[in-house]
Amino acid sequence: MQAGFTIQTRGTGLFDITEQVGGFVKSWRRDEGLLTLFVRHTSCSLLIQENADPDVRKDLQAFFRRLAPHASDPSMDWITHRTEGPDDMPAHIKAAVLPTSLSIPLSGGRMMLGEWQGIYLFEHRDLPQARHVVAHIA
Amino acid sequence: MQAGFTIQTRGTGLFDITEQVGGFVKSWRRDEGLLTLFVRHTSCSLLIQENADPDVRKDLQAFFRRLAPHASDPSMDWITHRTEGPDDMPAHIKAAVLPTSLSIPLSGGRMMLGEWQGIYLFEHRDLPQARHVVAHIA
Amino acid sequence: MQAGFTIQTRGTGLFDITEQVGGFVKSWRRDEGLLTLFVRHTSCSLLIQENADPDVRKDLQAFFRRLAPHASDPSMDWITHRTEGPDDMPAHIKAAVLPTSLSIPLSGGRMMLGEWQGIYLFEHRDLPQARHVVAHIA
Repeated sequence: MQAGFTIQTRGTGLFDITEQVGGFVKSWRRDEGLLTLFVRHTSCSLLIQENADPDVRKDLQAFFRRLAPHASDPSMDWITHRTEGPDDMPAHIKAAVLPTSLSIPLSGGRMMLGEWQGIYLFEHRDLPQARHVVAHIA
Repeated sequence: MQAGFTIQTRGTGLFDITEQVGGFVKSWRRDEGLLTLFVRHTSCSLLIQENADPDVRKDLQAFFRRLAPHASDPSMDWITHRTEGPDDMPAHIKAAVLPTSLSIPLSGGRMMLGEWQGIYLFEHRDLPQARHVVAHIA
Repeated sequence: MQAGFTIQTRGTGLFDITEQVGGFVKSWRRDEGLLTLFVRHTSCSLLIQENADPDVRKDLQAFFRRLAPHASDPSMDWITHRTEGPDDMPAHIKAAVLPTSLSIPLSGGRMMLGEWQGIYLFEHRDLPQARHVVAHIA
C-alpha cells in the first residue's frame, strides 16, 4: 500500500505532519506493519522530534542555521555551488545530515510513536515550496 | 513479527545492544527478511558503529558533546528551551542528527552486520533513563 | 529478494551508484515494494543527494572535512583513537552523522526518487576501499 501527498511549506521551518500521516495509516486499516515515509527532495528533510514545547523546534532551526549558515556568510566563503541562491547549498548540507526517510512500526492500527514524538517536514529553503512525500506500508 | 524491549541506560554513553537484538532475531527463526529497530524517544538515538576499540565510542561522545554542549556553556546562549535542564536541548539536537530507526537485512537467520559493526543505544541525557525500543521483522 | 554487491572506491568522495541499484531493481521485476540499501562498514555512508551540479558533492565533502578534520589537525587534539591513521576517527564521526541504510519505495518497477535525487556511496577514508552493500526488496 502506497500513497503520495504534497506538503506546502511556508519557508524554512518544521511543519507538523503527524495527523496527516496518521490519517493515511487509519484509512489503510492495517493493524500491524511498518510505515516508511520518503521525501523526494534534497533540500528538505523528514524528522521525528519533540512535539511538546515549540521552543525545541525553534532551537533546532537555530542550531542548523549555525551549523550551515547562508553562503553569503563570511564563514561559508569556501562554498562553490552558488547559482541557486545563498540558501541552497546550506539546504543540501542539512538534507545530508537529517533524514530523507523514516521507518515507523505500526501496532493496533496506529504508529508506535512515543508520547513526545511528532513527525515533521523540515523545510531548509527560504521560500515556500511544494514537497512531495511517499507513504508506504508493508 | 514485532516486540518491544527496554534498555536501562546509566547516563550519557553508547550501550551495546547487538547481542540482545541478535537474540530476538534468533528466537523468531526467520531466515531472510528485514529488521527495523525504532526508539520511542527524542533525546537518545540508535546507532551502528565500530565494535572494536572502545576509544571510538569515547571519541564519538566527545565529538557530539562539542557539537552541542550543555545549554549552560557560553557558546549555547542562544538556546531558549531550558526548562528541562541544560542537557535536554543538546540531547534533542543529537537525536535530530543521529538515527531514530535502523534497517538491517537478515540472511541465514542472522543480521547482515559487517565484521566491525555493533548496534548501540546512544543515551544523550545526563541521568539514567529507561528507553523503549521496538523491533520489527518483515 | 536480496543481493550483495561491492563498490570499489577511489578514496574520499561521493560515488554515484544510482544506475547500478536501478539495474538490480529492474532485474527483480518487482512493481511495487520497498528497497532497502545497507552498507556493512562504519567508515563510509550511503546518501541520497543532488545529482545535477557536481559542485554540490564537492561542497558536501568540504563541509564534512571541516566538521571532522583529520586527527592531525590541531582542533582535533582531543581524539584518542589514532592507531588506524589520522583519517579513521573522522571517518567514524561522518559515518555516525550520515546514513548506514536507505529506504526507497518502488512504483511501476522503478525507485520513486525525485528528479534531482541520486544515490551515492560516500567514502570517508583517504585510500581506496572495497565497500560491501546489501540490497533488499520486500
